Amino acid sequence: SEKLSIALIRGDGIGVDVANAALAVVDAAVAKVGLPALSYEEITAGAAYYKETGRDIEPGGEKRAGELDAIFLGAIGLPSVRHDDGTEIAPHLRLRDRYGLYAGVRPVKAYPNAPQRLADPRAAEIDMVILRESTEGLFFSAATHGRPNFASDHEVRDTLRITRPTTEKLFHFGFRLAEKRKARGRPGKLTCVDKANVFNSMAFFRKIFDEISPQYPEVEATHNYVDAQALDLIRKPWEFDVMVMENMFGDILSDLGGGLVGGMGMAACAEIGDEVGLFQPAHGSAPDIMGQDKANPLAAVLSGSLMLDYLAERTGNHRWTEAAELVETAVQSGFEANRLRPMEFGGDMGTLAVTKELLELLG
Amino acid sequence: SEKLSIALIRGDGIGVDVANAALAVVDAAVAKVGLPALSYEEITAGAAYYKETGRDIEPGGEKRAGELDAIFLGAIGLPSVRHDDGTEIAPHLRLRDRYGLYAGVRPVKAYPNAPQRLADPRAAEIDMVILRESTEGLFFSAATHGRPNFASDHEVRDTLRITRPTTEKLFHFGFRLAEKRKARGRPGKLTCVDKANVFNSMAFFRKIFDEISPQYPEVEATHNYVDAQALDLIRKPWEFDVMVMENMFGDILSDLGGGLVGGMGMAACAEIGDEVGLFQPAHGSAPDIMGQDKANPLAAVLSGSLMLDYLAERTGNHRWTEAAELVETAVQSGFEANRLRPMEFGGDMGTLAVTKELLELLG
Ligand SMILES: CC(C)[C@H](C(=O)O)[C@@H](O)C(=O)O
Ligand SMILES: CC(C)[C@H](C(=O)O)[C@@H](O)C(=O)O
Repeated sequence: SEKLSIALIRGDGIGVDVANAALAVVDAAVAKVGLPALSYEEITAGAAYYKETGRDIEPGGEKRAGELDAIFLGAIGLPSVRHDDGTEIAPHLRLRDRYGLYAGVRPVKAYPNAPQRLADPRAAEIDMVILRESTEGLFFSAATHGRPNFASDHEVRDTLRITRPTTEKLFHFGFRLAEKRKARGRPGKLTCVDKANVFNSMAFFRKIFDEISPQYPEVEATHNYVDAQALDLIRKPWEFDVMVMENMFGDILSDLGGGLVGGMGMAACAEIGDEVGLFQPAHGSAPDIMGQDKANPLAAVLSGSLMLDYLAERTGNHRWTEAAELVETAVQSGFEANRLRPMEFGGDMGTLAVTKELLELLG
Repeated sequence: SEKLSIALIRGDGIGVDVANAALAVVDAAVAKVGLPALSYEEITAGAAYYKETGRDIEPGGEKRAGELDAIFLGAIGLPSVRHDDGTEIAPHLRLRDRYGLYAGVRPVKAYPNAPQRLADPRAAEIDMVILRESTEGLFFSAATHGRPNFASDHEVRDTLRITRPTTEKLFHFGFRLAEKRKARGRPGKLTCVDKANVFNSMAFFRKIFDEISPQYPEVEATHNYVDAQALDLIRKPWEFDVMVMENMFGDILSDLGGGLVGGMGMAACAEIGDEVGLFQPAHGSAPDIMGQDKANPLAAVLSGSLMLDYLAERTGNHRWTEAAELVETAVQSGFEANRLRPMEFGGDMGTLAVTKELLELLG
């Protein structure tokens, strides 16, 4: 069976701690299903590296990352290290752009005994995915302009761009994801979240959605305006399955979703393009607790599970999916048995203790 | 004392029901403090009117609305009546634009016995304002382009525009609002919500905020990224006071805020410019329950209270503020005594019963 290589960017702060934890769990699951061990090629990047060298990623690193089978990233950025204009060190935004990582997959799932913010007991049933387009939309401006550059002190404009090719790919991805989830017992529903009542770009977005939806008769296709969706995510998040939306909307609603089920400590993320996939927890580098064995590695672990799933698609070998499911099941059953009690959730378990417990749960 | 005139646009659906209810309460409060009765000039507008006439507002109505002392609006729009391209009938977007109603004030406040979605008991302390810039930002595109018009079937762009004059006025408004709230016992904090880590326009927005904040030493000025703010509104909304942000961000976060404290049924809204102020509940026209005495009038009533406050600023006569406070106190004490039980919240009181109770509470 094939030998796969992962580009590993640990990055800054707790990125290092959680990447190490996640990959230990990933490796154990891979071994358990009898697949050859993943090999890792480390690529140095981040704010600490930028401070030292003036570069945010090692020479050739951006190119090399895209040549391997997947990219795994810990976290990038430090509040104390910024560009001159105050913006963050964010080489991962360039990776999204360079490799066309249009499909930002952000699962939001309630685990038993993990914190829930909503009073309604149905919040225990939350199991949804925010599918965030990740290369264009309003972030078109971020990618093209790079750093702030005020052409005038009177006004500054940014551009929200929706293109047909990316949007079509995004919706096909969304419908296929809803189909796959349906096969696993979820409702199989895709909600197009937009603001088609006001913006040309969003009416275009919805029009393309309506063109494509008849190709997926098994999936229930619905619409919601983004403001109403924010409200509905408070009022009845358990009614949603997959929601697909423009980049900036997805940035906001995925953090909202994270908030519903315990903050960013459970927020896994995959960013997938035609040739390249990048996997990282959606949380930041929390330098105040770095290296202290306090970080919650679960968002990174769940991102590792998304990576294993991606390797199954990439290779056509379903055993990678089995490995992904082992990781997911370890997290699920660990919470059920109250064996996962991360400090972030007021528990007594640091990074290593959570990792050790997961390894035991994997058996 | 002066005689003031209000442009009254009842609009569609329950807009009629809640406008009537709100103005009955407003009139009672005005009488109670001994001010001359407000006079109302009705202006016909909305989707039903559009269906009949092909116009969304009566001839000359837009101009006349701006010449009176304030505009009070019920609700506009009907799902079954749309422009050919599927977009909504929204003459109020034109009013925002024409009269430069830059300051969109959307209070979010928890009332006792009204529904709360968060499990944490501190949610009872939620008392904040989303200040949504309401004329530019991404809505610049809505105002200029009007209806969807796909120049190309390959890509469609919209523009997010931040100008210095509007942004300066917005922040001055925000700081003054935080000062006023501080005088009434709130923390006196203004949070600039942006995405300055990614967008030129947002870095410009934050830069102007940082220029202006030293002029208001009594107000604690802070920053938050919009994604983190969405999360914080789930995690610890009780820590916020006034939040100021771009138009689209404000649209999303104000609905999120509404969701925290009982849905849109309590969502009051003021949109204020240099010369004109418009007041309306932020909810829709809910035509399914129109004319059935089921609508919750409280968002409209609280919008009426915002209008009275505005009339105090406009005339320099503080007795209008007293009337505003009477209305606010009636709602507060009505909930405290469990005398306000709107059907929307599972209670037994229709529009008229809620209105009658408020009139009794006003004494
Ligand atoms: C750090 C920032 C540029 C990034 C984004 O907005 O995409 C982050 O918020 C995320 O969600 O991955
Ligand atoms: C109806 C729509 C155009 C409007 C807006 O987005 O401004 C509404 O959502 C609001 O918040 O007042």
